Amino acid sequence: MAAFKLTLEYDGTGFAGWQRQAGDERTVQGTLERVVGEVCGEAPQVTGAGRTDAGVHALGQVAAVSVPTRLGAGELQRALNARLPKDLAVVACEDAPRDFHPRYDARSKLYRYVVWNGRARSPLRERTAHWVPVPLDVEAMGQAAGALEGHHDFASFKAAGSDVEDTVRTLHRAEVTGGPGGEVRLELEGSGFLRHMVRNVAGTLIEVGLGKRPPEGISGLLEARDRTLAGPTAPARGLTLVWVSYAFPRNPEDLPPEALDGPGPLG
Amino acid sequence: MAAFKLTLEYDGTGFAGWQRQAGDERTVQGTLERVVGEVCGEAPQVTGAGRTDAGVHALGQVAAVSVPTRLGAGELQRALNARLPKDLAVVACEDAPRDFHPRYDARSKLYRYVVWNGRARSPLRERTAHWVPVPLDVEAMGQAAGALEGHHDFASFKAAGSDVEDTVRTLHRAEVTGGPGGEVRLELEGSGFLRHMVRNVAGTLIEVGLGKRPPEGISGLLEARDRTLAGPTAPARGLTLVWVSYAFPRNPEDLPPEALDGPGPLG
Repeated sequence: MAAFKLTLEYDGTGFAGWQRQAGDERTVQGTLERVVGEVCGEAPQVTGAGRTDAGVHALGQVAAVSVPTRLGAGELQRALNARLPKDLAVVACEDAPRDFHPRYDARSKLYRYVVWNGRARSPLRERTAHWVPVPLDVEAMGQAAGALEGHHDFASFKAAGSDVEDTVRTLHRAEVTGGPGGEVRLELEGSGFLRHMVRNVAGTLIEVGLGKRPPEGISGLLEARDRTLAGPTAPARGLTLVWVSYAFPRNPEDLPPEALDGPGPLG
Repeated sequence: MAAFKLTLEYDGTGFAGWQRQAGDERTVQGTLERVVGEVCGEAPQVTGAGRTDAGVHALGQVAAVSVPTRLGAGELQRALNARLPKDLAVVACEDAPRDFHPRYDARSKLYRYVVWNGRARSPLRERTAHWVPVPLDVEAMGQAAGALEGHHDFASFKAAGSDVEDTVRTLHRAEVTGGPGGEVRLELEGSGFLRHMVRNVAGTLIEVGLGKRPPEGISGLLEARDRTLAGPTAPARGLTLVWVSYAFPRNPEDLPPEALDGPGPLG
């Protein structure tokens, strides 16, 4: 048996999320397990660092797989990419320790949420950005995001109905860039994330940007530990898992910076 | 009758190009004419500034339409966008003189060609970039591009089989940006373009970037006026018509710069 660390890029539009499901839903994990099975002759179990929801994208999702193969990492990568569908690719493949676990071993992750803030909808951003036509107060959004940085109880931003008990997480960075009328991006870098946390933060910050809630209200929202007080869950299409790091601070050599920027102007 | 100038954004992946066709091929012009007809009660003729090929995208294609309507420009834009499919939108709509002709009146256009130069294919760039896995010599490509700037006979870069007689055009700017391993972008700004000219230039510059032809060879290639000597026609998916200008120099107020940048990192 050989163990590998796979770094994955996918367009989440056509997937019912990361996690394999009972029915014949098309998932990233299910697709990858099928193709690894075709290449290696035995259907393996693939474990991922983050269970992205339906419609959520990844530039640097990380998965682990153990398979009975004599292929080297580079050969395995080429064999998989030749068979994987166009919306999923292995962008890096490395030998890994047998006990490597992409989720438990992860030290930090970066999620990016993109809002298209133009007055008209943008067909070229249809799959990868959430459209908000009213000009956003990006400065207020940045101020609100700043209040989320640090070690906090994020219970107000957990998924509705979630019964997770430990809702304390650390955000190393929460930043809003871009400007009204163009793309507005939210980046959250942290040690761990609750289900729907980034999308709930995005929905809340959009309300701040629209003047529906004051940026100073974020601290009180954290203290309230009440999901019903935060904003709505922003649509999945705007969200991308950018990278997962296994060193802290993150090793900038983990992936080339060009790959992590994502498609640039007209990407 | 009222005349309007429409600025259009589209994801060209699902269109058989701009131009209406005899069969039931889905085209940008045909889709727009049908929807304008639904809104205004009379099927109009829509004229475009550039007849983009199948798979080519636009951030700022310009079209003219004359219709019997009392709708104002803003109302017409909203009515059209509510009915147009997700891959096509009117990003600006203005009153235009009755004799406005988007192609004949155009003073300059910007086309952008995007190459994804990562070692693995990029699912999130699948629709909008041409993948070249071998690292490109971007400096050599920039040098070759520079030789194309100015007033030249571009017969070597015309479409194979094209019988257009006047093949002299002016390129105000021909620039290559980005770096090997990431996105490499070619931008051509000019007063007019031959059919397939940008894609033929892109195919030739990629050969320069791969070391298959020297950057100094471009001047001789222009002088030869022989299509068979240039590189192959690069795939349509990498090409975007960014803007069309009716003033010279271009009025930067024509469209907001955010819109013209196209989707940014993870767009």
